Order: sequence, then C-alpha cells, then structure tokens
Amino acid sequence: MYYNGLKQAQTILKGQVNMDLIREVNAVKMFMGKLSHGVDLLEEITKICVDQDIYLGRIEALGAVKKARLGYYNQQDHEYHFFDLNQTLEITNLIGNISIKDGAPVVHAHITLSDKDGHAYGGHLAPGTIVFACEVAIQVLDGPNFERGLDQETGLPLWKMNE
Amino acid sequence: MYYNGLKQAQTILKGQVNMDLIREVNAVKMFMGKLSHGVDLLEEITKICVDQDIYLGRIEALGAVKKARLGYYNQQDHEYHFFDLNQTLEITNLIGNISIKDGAPVVHAHITLSDKDGHAYGGHLAPGTIVFACEVAIQVLDGPNFERGLDQETGLPLWKMNE
Amino acid sequence: MYYNGLKQAQTILKGQVNMDLIREVNAVKMFMGKLSHGVDLLEEITKICVDQDIYLGRIEALGAVKKARLGYYNQQDHEYHFFDLNQTLEITNLIGNISIKDGAPVVHAHITLSDKDGHAYGGHLAPGTIVFACEVAIQVLDGPNFERGLDQETGLPLWKMNE
Repeated sequence: MYYNGLKQAQTILKGQVNMDLIREVNAVKMFMGKLSHGVDLLEEITKICVDQDIYLGRIEALGAVKKARLGYYNQQDHEYHFFDLNQTLEITNLIGNISIKDGAPVVHAHITLSDKDGHAYGGHLAPGTIVFACEVAIQVLDGPNFERGLDQETGLPLWKMNE
Repeated sequence: MYYNGLKQAQTILKGQVNMDLIREVNAVKMFMGKLSHGVDLLEEITKICVDQDIYLGRIEALGAVKKARLGYYNQQDHEYHFFDLNQTLEITNLIGNISIKDGAPVVHAHITLSDKDGHAYGGHLAPGTIVFACEVAIQVLDGPNFERGLDQETGLPLWKMNE
Repeated sequence: MYYNGLKQAQTILKGQVNMDLIREVNAVKMFMGKLSHGVDLLEEITKICVDQDIYLGRIEALGAVKKARLGYYNQQDHEYHFFDLNQTLEITNLIGNISIKDGAPVVHAHITLSDKDGHAYGGHLAPGTIVFACEVAIQVLDGPNFERGLDQETGLPLWKMNE
C-alpha cells in the first residue's frame, strides 16, 4: 500500500540526522487570549513576550485582519520582498516561535489568510498586518538558548547551534 | 541584518500591552484520534467536547473532506458570508479553540484546504464540511472561564474579559 | 447572534460520538530546532523520529523550501496524485503526526506554502520537498498504539482502533 513514498523507515538507521540542530525543550506554561482590535499583529505578540519575559516559545493564532503585510524570501538574492494585501482577510492559520535576537525576544511567524471567495494567501508575517480580531495561544518553553544570528548559507537570522 | 522590520524589541518597554486580554491556562490532558468517515467536521468535534466535558482547549487537525462550507466575515457589515466548495479537498490545516457560549462548549475553528492542483482555500469552518478522513488532536486546558459574548466593536462573539 | 451555524451545543447529548476513535495521550517531551539546508523535508523529520525512537507525536513547522512535491488524494479512485511545485516557496504551515506503520515510525504531514505574490498552495507532504530553511517543533506523546493499516472505506492507511 503506497502511502508517503518514503523508503521504509525500517531501512533508516539511527545517526543519519544531525541532532545538534534539534534540542529538547520543556513546556513551562501557556497563555491564551485575544488581541485588541486595531493593533499591529506582529508587534502586539512581541509586546506580550517582552511583558511576560518570554524568550522561548510557540505561538498559534486564528482570527481576521483589516489588511496584511507579508514577506517572501528571495532565496537567490538573500532578500525579503514585502507586499501588502489591502483587503480584509480571515487568518486561517498563524504559526510561530519566540526566541532571542540581539538579547531581546523575537517573534518569527508565518500566516495563512483567506479572502471573501475563499482564496488563500500566505507568507512571513511582517509589521503592517492590522488585527480585526485575533485569538492567540502562546506556549512558553524553557531550554537551551535559541539565539538568532546570521546564517551565511541562507542569509537568514537562523538559530545558532553547536555547528 | 533586516529580519522582521519591527523596531528592536529592546526598545519595547513592559506595560505596553493589555494583559487583561491574555490569561494563563494549564494543560490538563490531550486526545488524539480520527473522525468517522462522512460526519460533519465541526459538529463532530463539538460532540467530542460535549461528550468529554471540554470547556477550554485547543484543536488541530489534518485530513481530507468531501466538500467544504466556509465563512468569511464582512468586517463592514458585521455579517458572515458563507460559501460552499463543492469538491473533494485536502485539509492542509485546521486550527481552533474550545470555549463556552450560552453555557455550552463552542468550537471556533479555521481551516485551510487544497485542491488537485495544489491551490489553497480557507475560511471560518462552518457546518456542512463533510469528513472524508480526519486526524485530530485536542488539548484540554484548565483556567479562568473563556465565555463568548457579543463584542460591539466587531460584531463577533468574542471572549468577555475584564475589559 | 449567529456564529457558527451549529445547532446549540446544549441540544447535543453525550454519547453521540464514537469515542473509540479518540484516545487519551500524554505529553512526554518536546523537541525544537532547525533542519539542515538542502535535506528532504519529510525524510529528515522521519529520521529524527527513528533516531529518537518517537512512535507517537505531533509536528509543526515553518520555513521555506527550494521546491515542493505534494500529494492530493483522489477520493473516488483511492489513489494519490502527486505533483511538483518547481519554485522557491515559504512554508506558511506544516502540521503532522507521528505514529507506527509496519513497525516503524511514520510521519503524516500536510503543508501550506506561498509564492512571491502571496498565493497559497497546499497538500499532503511527499518526498521531494527540499528544505531551504525550516524550524520545527516535535511533541513526543505516549499512549496506546497508533498503528496504521488499510482502511477499506477510504483506501488510506488510517489508524486501526477498536472498530
């Protein structure tokens, strides 16, 4: 029975993945709530993290926005291209994480949106995305430092591990 | 290095976010399983919550549907516009929460779907979305009451906090 | 106030859902990290599970891919149709689970992607989706066996419960 097309996992031996890049973390606590009408979505989540001293965590959200500003990373030029969706949209999904950059909490989130005909849009969440209504869950984690720094290969501020 | 375009989080001071809207909750237990073929997706998740007395929680799911009925909220008119996608679709993501409305559990979920060419659709999950196959995880939470009531500003049944 | 169009949950009685299909599971531990540049997304997550002996769990991820290979299940013919998106894309969401198939860990994941104009795509994650950068969280669960076997009604390798 064909399923996911992978070679059988039985044939995958241990030690084939770089586990230096994957770290165990601990669930500490969770917040759930809503964001204020009219705030900047990315900035507001970042403010919550600053306010609550959250330096490591996971985020999820759903809701609606008045407009969105998204990023798409040009993998050749190593530059973000930002664009605006100037319409009201449903947030069908927001997923993100919280870690450290330059000593402060940084939120990295991607968002999926949909318009009145159900067409979906998405990208890297940028400032300029304005909340109409938003319900958010933030799971606070504890563990080794997840600190972002420039990754030469991608040009992105990825987590610096023991590489 | 440009990243998310936000002013540095170091310059965000505490106390800039309304923490009355964000509450600490506790993870109680988790359910994982599948939904029956042919059931109504939203109704079935709601039935699980009623059956298991779940009044607060988080939901995620993936799978496929025989057809979908989605909502898009008209932010000007304060009215949901509902529409049908009369085709078989993958559920690429379902995210939602469980809280209380009129004394009973209510499921609020948004869904992202995709068709045979990979085009994505999304919206507010409405009754009339029929399960082909669906794998679901429900995290049961404990905490202060999350009770929905009319929010005048948006016209939506948002959580009533200490506002 | 109209909300989700469901009959009031108060009128849903207990015992209307097949709880044999929904099982309680326990959160054991969590991993968070990044995947190596250039690896196969599905294969790499599977390797982590094999390496760490994860037989039950939940996965989420965001990031970007160099190209994607997705599946769409033909519900009439009971066959997956696979197709390639030969462009660089953001991963706006990846959601999945880990269970057992033929005695080994198997990853079932669906992915949502977006292009440079913000258009979204999605489907069943297949081998051939190549990581540009990817941040992943894996929650390891403990509980009854979740083992996949052929489901006659759908033709899919669904979890075999006490059906």
